Amino acid sequence: MDTPERLIQSTRELLWERGYTGTSPKAILQRSGVGQGSMYHHFSGKPDLALAAIRRTAEEMRAKAEEQFSEPGTALERITAYLRRERDVLRGCPIGRLTQDPDIVASPALRQPVDETFGRLRQRLAEVLTEGRQRGEIASALDPASTAATIVAVLQGGYVLARAADSTEPFDQAVDGILVLLAQGAR
Amino acid sequence: MDTPERLIQSTRELLWERGYTGTSPKAILQRSGVGQGSMYHHFSGKPDLALAAIRRTAEEMRAKAEEQFSEPGTALERITAYLRRERDVLRGCPIGRLTQDPDIVASPALRQPVDETFGRLRQRLAEVLTEGRQRGEIASALDPASTAATIVAVLQGGYVLARAADSTEPFDQAVDGILVLLAQGAR
Repeated sequence: MDTPERLIQSTRELLWERGYTGTSPKAILQRSGVGQGSMYHHFSGKPDLALAAIRRTAEEMRAKAEEQFSEPGTALERITAYLRRERDVLRGCPIGRLTQDPDIVASPALRQPVDETFGRLRQRLAEVLTEGRQRGEIASALDPASTAATIVAVLQGGYVLARAADSTEPFDQAVDGILVLLAQGAR
Repeated sequence: MDTPERLIQSTRELLWERGYTGTSPKAILQRSGVGQGSMYHHFSGKPDLALAAIRRTAEEMRAKAEEQFSEPGTALERITAYLRRERDVLRGCPIGRLTQDPDIVASPALRQPVDETFGRLRQRLAEVLTEGRQRGEIASALDPASTAATIVAVLQGGYVLARAADSTEPFDQAVDGILVLLAQGAR
């Protein structure tokens, strides 16, 4: 791995573990084994490096979701595959957790990739739901846009509940619950 | 307000705004206007004071939720009142946000009131849903425990999406979505 890449990977890990406020430039240097001069040669500072790290994490998250959304199968099967895919639930969502960082939310530049990730996720889920509705796999009473927001919220809230309980059980329960609700109105 | 009370209130505000990691003893002293000696006279340190602050916030959250859960009306009306009650959505949940704090999650003592709050909330919602099912207001296919976890997750995830978007819109959409889903199977 080259130097910028080592810095980005270390920053991604630290942002996930400790958040933006809890991640010091010093900690990034220690984790990456990169020298201070070299860091400031490649990145103007912590915000610049964090932005590169968040963008990378967002891209990977989007690509992973697309694997399940573009599978063959009914809308409900694809949403089930997405929600039940293997996740490191107790670590939480590396993108969602950033919304609790006041410095991220206060910075339009740092918030942008977070917002875009959820926006894109909601849009793709709404497309899957629209297809499912057309095929009678999903109740026609369900509005795709708001149902998509509900599904993404269940996932993000499931992480919150799992971390509170130090157990994946409430995450699994929340996912079970939304899948039964989604299946209800199918023809 | 007496000194311990001023310290508790300032700590509550700071935990909500900046989280546990982002809240220094110095910031608590500045916000409360209390002297260092006085703080350590009443509390053994930041963890002790944070525990008192979290417990207070948890108690208030529980009491507020109970107002809607114990209202007259159908299960769906009470759940609607709970989800649609006026909230400072963009500030996020003062309890849920703590789950993103690695120091809270790593401390059994500090995590305990967070876990208990969500556990109690899920239990009360499951009771409301069980009542609703018995009265035919809620589809009998819905398992109260997992549906309750889903509802709490929608709320917590709704905060995450709203903060990401810097707008209450995705929170409102997620709530609209779950309410339509819950109403689906009612007789």
